[in-house]
Amino acid sequence: MSGPSRRGFLGAAIGTAGVLAAGSGGYGVARATEPSTEHPSAAPIEFYGPHQAGIDTPAQDRLAFAAFDVTSPDVQALKAMLGSWAAAAAQMTSGQPIGPVETAPQAPPIDTGEALGLEPSQLTITVGFGPSLFDDRFGLAKRRPAALADLPAFPNDVLEPDRSGGDIGVQACSNDPQVAFHVIRNFARVARGTAVMRWSQLGFGRTSTTSKAQATPRNLMGFKDGTNNVKAEDSTDLNSFVWVADETDQPWMRGGSYLVARRIRMLIESWDADYLADQERVFGRSKETGAPLTGKAEFDTVNLASKAIPADAHIRLAAPATNDGQKILRRGYSFTDGIDPVTGQLDAGLFFIAYQKDPRKQFVPIQTRLAAGDALNEYIKHTGSALFAVPPGVSAAGDWFGKALFG
Amino acid sequence: MSGPSRRGFLGAAIGTAGVLAAGSGGYGVARATEPSTEHPSAAPIEFYGPHQAGIDTPAQDRLAFAAFDVTSPDVQALKAMLGSWAAAAAQMTSGQPIGPVETAPQAPPIDTGEALGLEPSQLTITVGFGPSLFDDRFGLAKRRPAALADLPAFPNDVLEPDRSGGDIGVQACSNDPQVAFHVIRNFARVARGTAVMRWSQLGFGRTSTTSKAQATPRNLMGFKDGTNNVKAEDSTDLNSFVWVADETDQPWMRGGSYLVARRIRMLIESWDADYLADQERVFGRSKETGAPLTGKAEFDTVNLASKAIPADAHIRLAAPATNDGQKILRRGYSFTDGIDPVTGQLDAGLFFIAYQKDPRKQFVPIQTRLAAGDALNEYIKHTGSALFAVPPGVSAAGDWFGKALFG
Repeated sequence: MSGPSRRGFLGAAIGTAGVLAAGSGGYGVARATEPSTEHPSAAPIEFYGPHQAGIDTPAQDRLAFAAFDVTSPDVQALKAMLGSWAAAAAQMTSGQPIGPVETAPQAPPIDTGEALGLEPSQLTITVGFGPSLFDDRFGLAKRRPAALADLPAFPNDVLEPDRSGGDIGVQACSNDPQVAFHVIRNFARVARGTAVMRWSQLGFGRTSTTSKAQATPRNLMGFKDGTNNVKAEDSTDLNSFVWVADETDQPWMRGGSYLVARRIRMLIESWDADYLADQERVFGRSKETGAPLTGKAEFDTVNLASKAIPADAHIRLAAPATNDGQKILRRGYSFTDGIDPVTGQLDAGLFFIAYQKDPRKQFVPIQTRLAAGDALNEYIKHTGSALFAVPPGVSAAGDWFGKALFG
Repeated sequence: MSGPSRRGFLGAAIGTAGVLAAGSGGYGVARATEPSTEHPSAAPIEFYGPHQAGIDTPAQDRLAFAAFDVTSPDVQALKAMLGSWAAAAAQMTSGQPIGPVETAPQAPPIDTGEALGLEPSQLTITVGFGPSLFDDRFGLAKRRPAALADLPAFPNDVLEPDRSGGDIGVQACSNDPQVAFHVIRNFARVARGTAVMRWSQLGFGRTSTTSKAQATPRNLMGFKDGTNNVKAEDSTDLNSFVWVADETDQPWMRGGSYLVARRIRMLIESWDADYLADQERVFGRSKETGAPLTGKAEFDTVNLASKAIPADAHIRLAAPATNDGQKILRRGYSFTDGIDPVTGQLDAGLFFIAYQKDPRKQFVPIQTRLAAGDALNEYIKHTGSALFAVPPGVSAAGDWFGKALFG
């Protein structure tokens, strides 16, 4: 079957690249659409813009994430793939297949079809570049941002190589998991001959809010998580902590951000055996209401001067006040991947995603502090890790992910 | 941490068992509720009734399935666990935690908490007993129904033992995956000391309709699946093909059904390389519309007399007319479990679930025919298999899953 496949893919890639090169509207260019008030969760999110969607846009319910390694030594093939991905992303985020389904009987369908008829459900597709892409293969070493420094090893890390790293990261979020999965699958298909999937992760439930209009969800420890997250309404915070600006040493990253992904396994059987009062001391919050132990309601100010919040409480060590005022924008998801064959326990936890202007000043010092002293460490372990430089948004048809990096 | 856990679980188990034994309402007894017309997908489904919910009730969007093996030799412990499960199921399906969250600081919370504040979203919990439960451990050998005969080996099987079998199967379906996962996790917790989870499977998107009010979804091959499924509106079909009645040799199964689960891996990279016309010949349907190749619209009658539907088309071999008029009620879900470490390809496919009155007359002959000649076999392999006798519904507080089996 590899013969027709190869031909089919080339045809498909050329087809979408053609739309791209022509700079024309083509079919399926994303429409600017106001979210419907009747079914807001099914509406599309605009793909084109100064920043990539999927960062400060409302956190959707479901995640499909994949990391790819580039296998072709040809930078032109890599650029063509990123161009085809951008054209496909514009189509999928507006609810279109990436090509017609019923055209040529003697060719494989261009789109795999499982999302036909489904609304995009706020689909966003966010692409970033890992440190390994800036080795000597593609002449990009001089374009590597200083902020894309390899993450250090942390004390609580038990990282698995096949859940870590990657040349390119793709975050697909939607309120419909089939729509999110469709993106990863079709990106992998478009990539054939140029890149292969290194790892993937499904997230079944969001654990973060990125808008004040969203209710705070609970993580798999049963606690409300991300109460004090950076929200889309806080444009000052977005500019201070999330969007790369003139301070960067690499102009191609202006308007972008840095994505840190961590697969955090929760030892939920141990956690479930812990006393309620201890669970609440670990987080520094009430389990039922989410209120800090120094307050009565979820959004009450956390009083870190009070000893009611223990020295090793998660809420204290992660607080901006403990971290020189630094914040990150979290966008994590709960996952479960069945039973751990070694322990017989559930392999479940949090797929942590955070966006920031500079991981060296944000994720790294915060995680260093947490890894050294967080009471939560007894109940978690980090099994995967990745870092990606997320370039600015795709501006219009003809532009593509990281075009300025290769320019 | 095992000390407090053990005490905590016993307290919890006794707590819920107490409610059960008393036969009183207790807290959280499921309420009869009409689905809201405004948010139908968030509404509860009645737990108590003559049949277990989760069979002919509307197929929800998300699945969490788990198989358990009983580790205790004590039949009383097994009965207590099934009783605690039933009490917990009544609570969870009505949107309640299985116990108060904020009561005793010096004890673990009874409910793990991650579903607090979430609507049940049509949660159903369906429990069945595998053939292995009827060995000599619990004195149940004479109660084993003839219809619970071990499934034969089929030609296309590459079954993995750690994805197959189990003493007890639990199907949790909801439109909210966190609500479904919460069931499996809390059942596993209540089971501690009595049973352990053998395998589990998340399904992210339904592939079946069980009501004429539902639109037919697409499977991961991009085709509409289950067009001619048994629907809840067809009470004649339900009685003919799904619900066990007086014909059974085991009266405790009257009102029950038999669940066959098959984890069907799709070789989607090969499938995606296949020509459209060939894909349509494999299924016997149009990819875009779902119409049979002898018709124009999805629900047009399949004309098996026409050679337009090939001899090895899936639609032909699975059709009731090809199988002595037999039907099954399918309730399957798409899954993806990341990358296959051996092939580097996506480990994704269909977690097939079917309910029927007698697998010996329904699933087994249909699958025998499919395994021998289905054109689809080139693109799938069966990697997991399980069979469960699903007893009738839990009638009210005080009743529990399979009480008559142990009576």
